[in-house]
Amino acid sequence: MNTKILNGQAIPNIPWQDRPADCTDPVWRYDQNPVIPRDAVKCANSIFNSAVVPFEGGFAGVFRIDDKRRAMQLHAGFSPDGIHWNIDEERIHFVQADKSTEQVNDWLYGYDPRVCFIGDRFWVTWCNAFDRKPTIGIGYTFDFKTFYQCENAFLPFNRNGVLFPRKINDKFVMLSRPSDDGHTPFGDMFISQSPDMKYWGEHRHVMSPFMPWESTKIGAGPIPIETSEGWLCFYHGVLQSCNGFVYSFSACILDTDEPWKVKYRCADYLINPREQYECVGDVPNVTFPCAALCDADTGRIAIYYGCADTVVGLAFTTVDETVEYVKNHSSV
Amino acid sequence: MNTKILNGQAIPNIPWQDRPADCTDPVWRYDQNPVIPRDAVKCANSIFNSAVVPFEGGFAGVFRIDDKRRAMQLHAGFSPDGIHWNIDEERIHFVQADKSTEQVNDWLYGYDPRVCFIGDRFWVTWCNAFDRKPTIGIGYTFDFKTFYQCENAFLPFNRNGVLFPRKINDKFVMLSRPSDDGHTPFGDMFISQSPDMKYWGEHRHVMSPFMPWESTKIGAGPIPIETSEGWLCFYHGVLQSCNGFVYSFSACILDTDEPWKVKYRCADYLINPREQYECVGDVPNVTFPCAALCDADTGRIAIYYGCADTVVGLAFTTVDETVEYVKNHSSV
Amino acid sequence: MNTKILNGQAIPNIPWQDRPADCTDPVWRYDQNPVIPRDAVKCANSIFNSAVVPFEGGFAGVFRIDDKRRAMQLHAGFSPDGIHWNIDEERIHFVQADKSTEQVNDWLYGYDPRVCFIGDRFWVTWCNAFDRKPTIGIGYTFDFKTFYQCENAFLPFNRNGVLFPRKINDKFVMLSRPSDDGHTPFGDMFISQSPDMKYWGEHRHVMSPFMPWESTKIGAGPIPIETSEGWLCFYHGVLQSCNGFVYSFSACILDTDEPWKVKYRCADYLINPREQYECVGDVPNVTFPCAALCDADTGRIAIYYGCADTVVGLAFTTVDETVEYVKNHSSV
Amino acid sequence: MNTKILNGQAIPNIPWQDRPADCTDPVWRYDQNPVIPRDAVKCANSIFNSAVVPFEGGFAGVFRIDDKRRAMQLHAGFSPDGIHWNIDEERIHFVQADKSTEQVNDWLYGYDPRVCFIGDRFWVTWCNAFDRKPTIGIGYTFDFKTFYQCENAFLPFNRNGVLFPRKINDKFVMLSRPSDDGHTPFGDMFISQSPDMKYWGEHRHVMSPFMPWESTKIGAGPIPIETSEGWLCFYHGVLQSCNGFVYSFSACILDTDEPWKVKYRCADYLINPREQYECVGDVPNVTFPCAALCDADTGRIAIYYGCADTVVGLAFTTVDETVEYVKNHSSV
Amino acid sequence: MNTKILNGQAIPNIPWQDRPADCTDPVWRYDQNPVIPRDAVKCANSIFNSAVVPFEGGFAGVFRIDDKRRAMQLHAGFSPDGIHWNIDEERIHFVQADKSTEQVNDWLYGYDPRVCFIGDRFWVTWCNAFDRKPTIGIGYTFDFKTFYQCENAFLPFNRNGVLFPRKINDKFVMLSRPSDDGHTPFGDMFISQSPDMKYWGEHRHVMSPFMPWESTKIGAGPIPIETSEGWLCFYHGVLQSCNGFVYSFSACILDTDEPWKVKYRCADYLINPREQYECVGDVPNVTFPCAALCDADTGRIAIYYGCADTVVGLAFTTVDETVEYVKNHSSV
Amino acid sequence: MNTKILNGQAIPNIPWQDRPADCTDPVWRYDQNPVIPRDAVKCANSIFNSAVVPFEGGFAGVFRIDDKRRAMQLHAGFSPDGIHWNIDEERIHFVQADKSTEQVNDWLYGYDPRVCFIGDRFWVTWCNAFDRKPTIGIGYTFDFKTFYQCENAFLPFNRNGVLFPRKINDKFVMLSRPSDDGHTPFGDMFISQSPDMKYWGEHRHVMSPFMPWESTKIGAGPIPIETSEGWLCFYHGVLQSCNGFVYSFSACILDTDEPWKVKYRCADYLINPREQYECVGDVPNVTFPCAALCDADTGRIAIYYGCADTVVGLAFTTVDETVEYVKNHSSV
Repeated sequence: MNTKILNGQAIPNIPWQDRPADCTDPVWRYDQNPVIPRDAVKCANSIFNSAVVPFEGGFAGVFRIDDKRRAMQLHAGFSPDGIHWNIDEERIHFVQADKSTEQVNDWLYGYDPRVCFIGDRFWVTWCNAFDRKPTIGIGYTFDFKTFYQCENAFLPFNRNGVLFPRKINDKFVMLSRPSDDGHTPFGDMFISQSPDMKYWGEHRHVMSPFMPWESTKIGAGPIPIETSEGWLCFYHGVLQSCNGFVYSFSACILDTDEPWKVKYRCADYLINPREQYECVGDVPNVTFPCAALCDADTGRIAIYYGCADTVVGLAFTTVDETVEYVKNHSSV
Repeated sequence: MNTKILNGQAIPNIPWQDRPADCTDPVWRYDQNPVIPRDAVKCANSIFNSAVVPFEGGFAGVFRIDDKRRAMQLHAGFSPDGIHWNIDEERIHFVQADKSTEQVNDWLYGYDPRVCFIGDRFWVTWCNAFDRKPTIGIGYTFDFKTFYQCENAFLPFNRNGVLFPRKINDKFVMLSRPSDDGHTPFGDMFISQSPDMKYWGEHRHVMSPFMPWESTKIGAGPIPIETSEGWLCFYHGVLQSCNGFVYSFSACILDTDEPWKVKYRCADYLINPREQYECVGDVPNVTFPCAALCDADTGRIAIYYGCADTVVGLAFTTVDETVEYVKNHSSV
Repeated sequence: MNTKILNGQAIPNIPWQDRPADCTDPVWRYDQNPVIPRDAVKCANSIFNSAVVPFEGGFAGVFRIDDKRRAMQLHAGFSPDGIHWNIDEERIHFVQADKSTEQVNDWLYGYDPRVCFIGDRFWVTWCNAFDRKPTIGIGYTFDFKTFYQCENAFLPFNRNGVLFPRKINDKFVMLSRPSDDGHTPFGDMFISQSPDMKYWGEHRHVMSPFMPWESTKIGAGPIPIETSEGWLCFYHGVLQSCNGFVYSFSACILDTDEPWKVKYRCADYLINPREQYECVGDVPNVTFPCAALCDADTGRIAIYYGCADTVVGLAFTTVDETVEYVKNHSSV
Repeated sequence: MNTKILNGQAIPNIPWQDRPADCTDPVWRYDQNPVIPRDAVKCANSIFNSAVVPFEGGFAGVFRIDDKRRAMQLHAGFSPDGIHWNIDEERIHFVQADKSTEQVNDWLYGYDPRVCFIGDRFWVTWCNAFDRKPTIGIGYTFDFKTFYQCENAFLPFNRNGVLFPRKINDKFVMLSRPSDDGHTPFGDMFISQSPDMKYWGEHRHVMSPFMPWESTKIGAGPIPIETSEGWLCFYHGVLQSCNGFVYSFSACILDTDEPWKVKYRCADYLINPREQYECVGDVPNVTFPCAALCDADTGRIAIYYGCADTVVGLAFTTVDETVEYVKNHSSV
Repeated sequence: MNTKILNGQAIPNIPWQDRPADCTDPVWRYDQNPVIPRDAVKCANSIFNSAVVPFEGGFAGVFRIDDKRRAMQLHAGFSPDGIHWNIDEERIHFVQADKSTEQVNDWLYGYDPRVCFIGDRFWVTWCNAFDRKPTIGIGYTFDFKTFYQCENAFLPFNRNGVLFPRKINDKFVMLSRPSDDGHTPFGDMFISQSPDMKYWGEHRHVMSPFMPWESTKIGAGPIPIETSEGWLCFYHGVLQSCNGFVYSFSACILDTDEPWKVKYRCADYLINPREQYECVGDVPNVTFPCAALCDADTGRIAIYYGCADTVVGLAFTTVDETVEYVKNHSSV
Repeated sequence: MNTKILNGQAIPNIPWQDRPADCTDPVWRYDQNPVIPRDAVKCANSIFNSAVVPFEGGFAGVFRIDDKRRAMQLHAGFSPDGIHWNIDEERIHFVQADKSTEQVNDWLYGYDPRVCFIGDRFWVTWCNAFDRKPTIGIGYTFDFKTFYQCENAFLPFNRNGVLFPRKINDKFVMLSRPSDDGHTPFGDMFISQSPDMKYWGEHRHVMSPFMPWESTKIGAGPIPIETSEGWLCFYHGVLQSCNGFVYSFSACILDTDEPWKVKYRCADYLINPREQYECVGDVPNVTFPCAALCDADTGRIAIYYGCADTVVGLAFTTVDETVEYVKNHSSV
């Protein structure tokens, strides 16, 4: 590997397929996609935009499930191989971590979760209903059975809150996208910092939409991967055609110590909606990554991304492939 | 049958398939869908949102056909089995039932018909152009060959007018959805009453959008089925994603004598767009029921529903299945 | 008088001022306008768009008062001369005329009243909240002390319901404007007919916006005045500038027996916002007539019109002046 | 005084006029309004929405001045009597309080300031351009000559950040209104808490729009006044007419220790636009309070409010008057 | 004079008032404004946005008159002193200059005229209805009695077409603002060139909105004045508040030979709506200049500008005053 | 052939398939569609809306390629048979035809090209970024290797500029559609004329939207084909459903000498989106023709049309078939 993975973890059983012979793209799809169908759980209308992490030799995850009322829920799930999943029929019922949060955390909906291991626990962030308005909810779990809910990170309106996997300058750091209360037609990525996961400040602007494929809004995706080049971040971007939003995704590399500084940013998308399961579904033309496993030994990356707001797809790349492509196609 | 069908009719040749072995849903699709393709009639761009009734041992119907100008028309059709249809190439030309209606009924378009047998004739209601504005047109036929047109039920703007199959408290009763003049982003179901099908009043509010799948608007579907539990009504609901409207449908049970009182209302949808012919077409992601045959002897129900504003689909259930499911999942 | 007033009433004490010497307009303003200030009642934020009729030798009225919550209310009032008013501090609390209307008539707001004497009583129509949606409420009073509320005339959404002062062809007749649920940017005038003030039908289209001053929407104003030329109707029209709606008003003459037929329609407005009290207030640039007294002996007309949604103004004309002007400037 | 003022300050020279004899309203206007004309400073297009505090025996303030480019600026000013002001021609140039804030605080615009004395200094909050997007800027001054700028409180988009005048439960507390990036058509009041004025969390929802006068959005106004009944807060509300926003203001009383709990909330507005200088100007129909002096000895309150986004008006009341009125007209 | 006026004309009777003693602004208003009231012509609803030129020792003009239908018309008028005007009651009826233009020039409306003397005639440009869509109409007159209409300059949608008063590089040159079909929320100034006033090309972009006062759109105003510094152009700009558009105006200086190059551009507005007749009227808050007389002997400038889309105002400055101010406040 | 092709060219190797036996439509699809897949060029996200002409015994074309930044580019390509294409990996870099155009032609994007042979060269028109705003760019090539760029034809905002293949009345003639700056919801076809391809004028209105399938906007497609009946023009039309735009196409016949006169216009569409590759892709439900080869010997026509803004499709007809169908279904 040309690019070193820092503070990474070996994941020998990471899901993987080699690049197809006829493919020259830096990222390629799993040939059995969708890896998780919309009806993998009986109550589900759809399963997508979900977060997966290595857990006890296998994998665990927090899944966005829209039930048959189309209410947005979070469910836990487990897998031996990252491919075959056993997802709980019952949604996560958070235990309030503090007496004070009981005042504020009345469950209405939760969606687009991310899971980030820091220190001794798995932190979960998601788009949480705060007085019926979307903002970043924070919780944690040790075992994916009991989940604790903390104070919301921000005032509404916010979406796509993504933690960095370690403290930077002794502070927790979170990417997020300030939004409005609807199908927001704008959106930049910002960083916020916190000494304690409770109070947040020192906000910094990171990136605005730039290229046509992301010209409406952008938002962070999986937990950033620390490398010798900086933080490798996959992120989604939205183009608004006359027939609605198109969600593609690409990657950028942020400065290690001042992650609001963009070192490289890929001008091209890496994946865009073009397969049937990405183009047809509850929301056509969506590819939306929420998690990326990275095997520190091989540099292999397995990206879990929501497809058409209906199912979960899997795509593969390596740290070297992506870093090289991002640097070669950087608009910065 | 646990639930009794009241004032029903035996339809021994009702279209029917048993529930597939691997299916646990209360409503299931015909495996040869779409039952009516978009080009079943030469002039048609599409055939959908159509009304079917038992007629002379077979079936007759009024069909929404958008022609190749994309003008919305109503056509009559006949079938021995409810599956294979012979639809007239020529649209219905209404005869004016009264001298006075000649002033007002200048045909421009008609769509989304319903057909309801009351007393001695088949009443037809549809979305009718009244001075180029949509409202509920009313007509009747005895033979599906000659159709008579009456006064419009309401002032514009209204859509989805659906009659109850008998007088209640000696009055005709109609469900409808007040609208605006475009792709209306709101809509509740109301009831109106009439002594004579000409003058309407005693309007009552029935239901507002409630669950996420129906959060934009709701509207009545097939003619209500009278049961010992009340009026079983299938109705559609619309969710607005960032890429447009999604039409699903479910069911509720209204009080027998005061049908503006909702006894049960299913929180889940029963059918939502997920098959290719429901997701891809002139309007992606639409399942829109306009008729439901119900065999009084067996409780079997065959639902005809428009798919993607392009073709007609068929789905099956029974009175017992649906009533039980609605009661068990009721949000009321 | 060239034009005869039919079925009219002598109102010897009608408010009146002769046309100013320097004025050649067919309608002229009262020089003490506003005749009713915004704070004539202590609870009032504003008093405007109100209906006045001759009553027991003097005058009575139903007034739109927006209270200091800006809730829209109806209040009764009395005056010996039509100029000095004693308006009730307490809003009208309607008694339900029928047991059945108790189900539906839960007071939320009422605005823009009209009052029309037919037969033995004063009928009141107004924009009424029906399940929080605007439609035409109907009530009546004999004494302006006790008011009875009947069934709403129509389904939502409707505004500006105005009755004709006698039955035509043995039916009550009402003008109205179908609307949507907001600051409606469209609107035509329609007629509906009823044998009993309860059930309505035989709807007819009357007029669409035509001239620039009324190009956004039009709506009926005062109760029509029956003349030998037909029904003389003042009506408002709205033009949408880059800075909002501008409400002016003019007049048309409808056929006596088939009042949905427009005989003459004035291309010019008669009054538009140009005085300080018409241009500055809660809604700038509004002149909105809701009542017109007409003295059958002299043909004098006194028009009460809301100004800037804040106060009531008074304007004068005669039947002959207006009819002649409308005929000379007719666009029909 | 029935209601005690807690932690207040004697302001013997508070601007004051007794209530006019013919007025029964709980709040009344200064008869020399506007107290600050639009051109009190040569560079100014307009002066409004400004904050005033007692300072060294007289008064000091931070003023919103839109210059002749219509760029929004903050200027300091001084007055011996709160009526006659000497406002700096040059806008405030903030000194960065920390090295880190130099990264983020690049001045583009600032508006709608509030000034709050806590401990040893005057804290200034305002709507600050953060990467061209509005959020709550924080700064402080000791002398109204040198102003220091700190980290922005929140991510965009936010407006109307108002500090409480002492720590509650050992934390700084701020009211604010999350917004979007335009003329926001929604808005609730929230509370956020901070141990250090740098990191913010423990956000709580306070109030949503409720009455018609405030049905579009609400936002905090002057610094809350601590009383024996709780925190007395004047706040503005917006009603959206067909011709734009109308800004009125009223008051509520928040719980002393848990200020996100609303004890009383006035259903009526207290002041709404009705004077010429409130109805006519750069933005018609705006009354927007940003500061309220309160004399602890007499309970007199002098409210400074922006008028038509053009000038500053002054209104008077007392703690007793307002508290009693709010309690008597409370919608809670 | 520091700045020389080139190719100018002595206008000894130019309307004029000296700057008031208490005024330091570079442009000041006529103290008898509005110079032309809304009802100077009997048929007029309003008279504004009009063009005035020296003519036969006095002055002539083309006036925008909205009649009482609110139809937009052009009328000719004459004045001995530029203050007192005799405007034709009858609108201009253009004679078709070419047989070919009869096909296209069917009069529907015309507004916002400019008049420019080039060579032997007065060219008139205005916003003309071309198939009901706004674009730049072109005509000419020798005597302000007979007006000839030519081909429209451009395809729709365009407004504010303003000619330069001489050929540049042997071509006619016109400023204009491409628009859309409504109350356009965007707009830049462009230049187009023509060898013959019939075919146009060599389009060049001149300026985009820049400062807040003009942040929505900008458009050319009076005919440019040629000076030794370049072309002095007054132009309007629009700011969009929550209550609508605010039209102010300022000036820029364009390169003499390549007038699409901006040499200086004033960051401040010169006149904005603040007088009663500018703030209150059919469209509140509009100051819109369409003509500027310039006396070559003294450098005096008299600007005619529409006020609130209702009346005509007059403002004064000198070439030296304005050029110096523009240069001193230039944002270029 | 009943209809004669005038000034046509023999294309013996025109792509061709006979009409399928089961098809009675006047236009039919190539059974190997899409003829050009989205990834025929490595850099391409999609290839669609492209122009093809006979060239040196084979075919050449200018292709719209959206690259993986989703930037819109023009590429040249060649084919021996019109089916198998060799498209340049590198986009066209225009050489400026005149010194003066260097000022204005700074490449940002180009899309929806048309190619028209007139006299000695192939003229290319496309939607060109002029100061980031869309208008009609003009260029030419002799060899599809070197391309020269001229002055833009019009001011923004314009799209779908299509030249006639010979001068008419000694002038170049171009169809175009004036637009706005977004996903324009309106649009008529106009004609403009030019003596020299540089200055344009004598604009004429041709057609407005009329039938439902084209009710939002219409625009010219391939280069018109001259016939004995007039100019045969395929053109697209857009219908706006609740889920976005639907692009179909049909044909009209324009007068030979005065081509702004419509002789016949087909009420039906000829092709609408119904195949998978037309309904699913970057923009669902688009069929958009940009070129039509016509063999003068046989009357065979091969239409190249963009599908779902993703790929290129091919459809076939003959001059006789289409002319007859258009005449038989004409709405004129």
